[in-house]
Amino acid sequence: MHTTSVTGRVSEVTATALAASPALAASSPRDRADLLHRLAQVLQEHRDELVSVADRETHIGAARLGGEVDRTRFQLTAFADVVTDGAYLDVVVDRPIAGPPPAGRPDIRRMLTPLGPVGVFAASNFPFAFSVLGGDTASALAAGCPVVVKAHEGHPELSELTCALAADVLPDGALSLVTGRDAGRALVVDPNITAVGFTGSGAGGRALFDLATGREDPIPFYGELGSVNPAVVTPAAVAARGEEVAKAFVASFTLGSGQLCTKPGLLFLPAGHGLDEVLRLAVAEVAPRLLLGAWIREGYLASVGELARRNDVREIVPLPGGTEDAVAPSLFTMSASALREGPVAECFGPSAVVVEYESDEDLLAALATLPASLAVSVHGEAEEELAFKVFRAVQTGRVVWNGWPTGVSVTAAMHHGGPWPATTAPLHTSVGATAINRWLRPMAYQDVPDVLLPPPLRRDNPWHVPRRVDGEWSRRPA
Amino acid sequence: MHTTSVTGRVSEVTATALAASPALAASSPRDRADLLHRLAQVLQEHRDELVSVADRETHIGAARLGGEVDRTRFQLTAFADVVTDGAYLDVVVDRPIAGPPPAGRPDIRRMLTPLGPVGVFAASNFPFAFSVLGGDTASALAAGCPVVVKAHEGHPELSELTCALAADVLPDGALSLVTGRDAGRALVVDPNITAVGFTGSGAGGRALFDLATGREDPIPFYGELGSVNPAVVTPAAVAARGEEVAKAFVASFTLGSGQLCTKPGLLFLPAGHGLDEVLRLAVAEVAPRLLLGAWIREGYLASVGELARRNDVREIVPLPGGTEDAVAPSLFTMSASALREGPVAECFGPSAVVVEYESDEDLLAALATLPASLAVSVHGEAEEELAFKVFRAVQTGRVVWNGWPTGVSVTAAMHHGGPWPATTAPLHTSVGATAINRWLRPMAYQDVPDVLLPPPLRRDNPWHVPRRVDGEWSRRPA
Repeated sequence: MHTTSVTGRVSEVTATALAASPALAASSPRDRADLLHRLAQVLQEHRDELVSVADRETHIGAARLGGEVDRTRFQLTAFADVVTDGAYLDVVVDRPIAGPPPAGRPDIRRMLTPLGPVGVFAASNFPFAFSVLGGDTASALAAGCPVVVKAHEGHPELSELTCALAADVLPDGALSLVTGRDAGRALVVDPNITAVGFTGSGAGGRALFDLATGREDPIPFYGELGSVNPAVVTPAAVAARGEEVAKAFVASFTLGSGQLCTKPGLLFLPAGHGLDEVLRLAVAEVAPRLLLGAWIREGYLASVGELARRNDVREIVPLPGGTEDAVAPSLFTMSASALREGPVAECFGPSAVVVEYESDEDLLAALATLPASLAVSVHGEAEEELAFKVFRAVQTGRVVWNGWPTGVSVTAAMHHGGPWPATTAPLHTSVGATAINRWLRPMAYQDVPDVLLPPPLRRDNPWHVPRRVDGEWSRRPA
Repeated sequence: MHTTSVTGRVSEVTATALAASPALAASSPRDRADLLHRLAQVLQEHRDELVSVADRETHIGAARLGGEVDRTRFQLTAFADVVTDGAYLDVVVDRPIAGPPPAGRPDIRRMLTPLGPVGVFAASNFPFAFSVLGGDTASALAAGCPVVVKAHEGHPELSELTCALAADVLPDGALSLVTGRDAGRALVVDPNITAVGFTGSGAGGRALFDLATGREDPIPFYGELGSVNPAVVTPAAVAARGEEVAKAFVASFTLGSGQLCTKPGLLFLPAGHGLDEVLRLAVAEVAPRLLLGAWIREGYLASVGELARRNDVREIVPLPGGTEDAVAPSLFTMSASALREGPVAECFGPSAVVVEYESDEDLLAALATLPASLAVSVHGEAEEELAFKVFRAVQTGRVVWNGWPTGVSVTAAMHHGGPWPATTAPLHTSVGATAINRWLRPMAYQDVPDVLLPPPLRRDNPWHVPRRVDGEWSRRPA
């Protein structure tokens, strides 16, 4: 009877979220922004305690975790700014035109409106920025949607603590927590849940996507599933600054012990690059570290073991590395043609593969076989025709020039997404201002008098939101 | 071997679409707009011939079909305007900020980019506006996506003629046609197809949605499935203008012989409204007409027959009506409590049900049991508290005040969508300027030099598109 009781408990939680929905949806931009600022404040006030619990549960290290708290606060206040600005409501006002259709029309006013309670699946590798008060929660609360978080098993105490602290400054039902896989599945199929955000593995994300789309009433499922994130170095870039690029690559793929969905898993170098020794020395300088948990360590060791057993793969750094529990980074190399024959899957942990290409054609053919990635990096010289071709050959949500995909900026223009299998929803991002779009749907009001309209659509525009009125942007009455 | 040969033929067609994709995606706003204007021109030049073929195949009538051609031309030119304006690209430019993250950031520029070849399922009831050159096709071509249309079996000759005329003014592969149900299914699962638009029945839409989401690489499926579209008349409105409202209701639910997804299928009137005779007379004035095809007529007769057999439903207009092939409108009535006990499904054809409510509570309770609709109409007086409550009780994509849901205006602010079961994608519309969003996904460019950027993101903004630069809208260089 375990499943029944979990479902019962989840449905109680989502009922609370549903009850909180109308007031949250109707709250003014000021109230919504205040709420997000208060959450950022709570994180700051309890920063030391939170970091200490998180480090004990995840082994990420206090310095990185402190930076992650700062990023999470930044995300919350950034969404407060998004709400205050009001452009996210995407208001369009078409005033009436006399005469028969199609040119003639009634008064039509459109805005985005919150979907209702949403489910958010926390990630293992960002216990703050992609967890209880992470970007999914911040964007959903900013949109006016109550959130039910499915805690990650990797940091249960931190999840409970964060949720309890947040509950003190939030309306009842605006944020709740459920734990365990059964509860997670029950959450996705719960009738009160209108959409789900997820950050995690491809297999887990696909299983939950299938549940969400298989419902009697299907709901949107925004899964960010990670990817191999190829980085390409052109021959000209190797000639100009090969050593610098190689060292920076090692720093990027070992950042956070490689437990990042933006880790550059493949580095394409021209054959004869002569950088093996530089790479080996750079990797040797990275100290072995504990990974997020035993299940990650096991997956990592299995994955690198499998690579090491391939005849067409050579170790640049000899395996095994690391101490009993901690793991050292690993680095392999193979030819582009071998990659075309036998793909390399994403490996969660400090591992990467240098792929050597013989020619532009060899490189482009190998890139064309890769599944879509969250980010693709290209190191080259701007004038090169090859760079254009690489841009065209890859499928991705973000291209990075002469830089690395790790360290995703939280800005209005950021896109952290991409076609399947990078995500389950190619039109959406889980980082940046437009992440709020996932929790909103359009509503049109036809010939509705002011007294019955939501404030952003009223003639006097009391919240001063930017609106497209008869095709022109304005914050003025209309 | 029938399925195999269909799949082979469909994959040939989608390969042609894929080949056309890069050039269409890279085309300038002027070229894209020209293409849409040429399609509108073709419809105008062949208007008489097209209307004649369409009327023979659909029995909709030359006058209505002529209006539909006008609407379809209007849609094509409206999307030409959308492309020329450039706001649809949703460009965001965040210029670099020095310093460490989260406040420090690189240069990030984001825009929307076409998904690739898309599939469009034509509808039976709008042989122009929701078919080969309808809104789905217009918005997808405007976005820069080649289109493969699955023709509707109800007007095959018109579909072939329209596609052939369009092919004369389009690049190779930009628009193709496939026919038959097997080809439709093959289209949805074809690896070259990146998204699908559909207008049709709930059962058909759900089956194709399941195919699209069940793919190894799931793709977005935008299904517009129709709905019952309740219309509510408050006691105050009955007192002020009950007869006028009743007559207008009959005109709306019999428009196009009720074969519209926006048909108001339920009219909520306060018990004791005294409008039965007015309704009966108004219905009697509507001449019997041929429906779109025998399969629609059979579905309609089965549906009204089922209603007539219900003990809790009374005929306002006696059944059967109409001549041998043509059908007359039918009108039923039932109590709100009966509706709560036994729901009334959408009936495609000239049929509607008057639902009598005893009190505000009775009305709101009945409305709360209804599935989401494309549109909800409310006839009332603006000051009424009841109107607020009705707005809050219903789930819909559009509310219409003192008007009717039929006759969807093609404007920037229009939203023709809603939560399941009105559509499979609550964030999207199939009518209006924002219908273009369905075929576009974001791409971010980080620190990419001008020479490698698409024109809308270059510092000199050569296409003069509106861009949000560091939070401010501008068409200036940045």
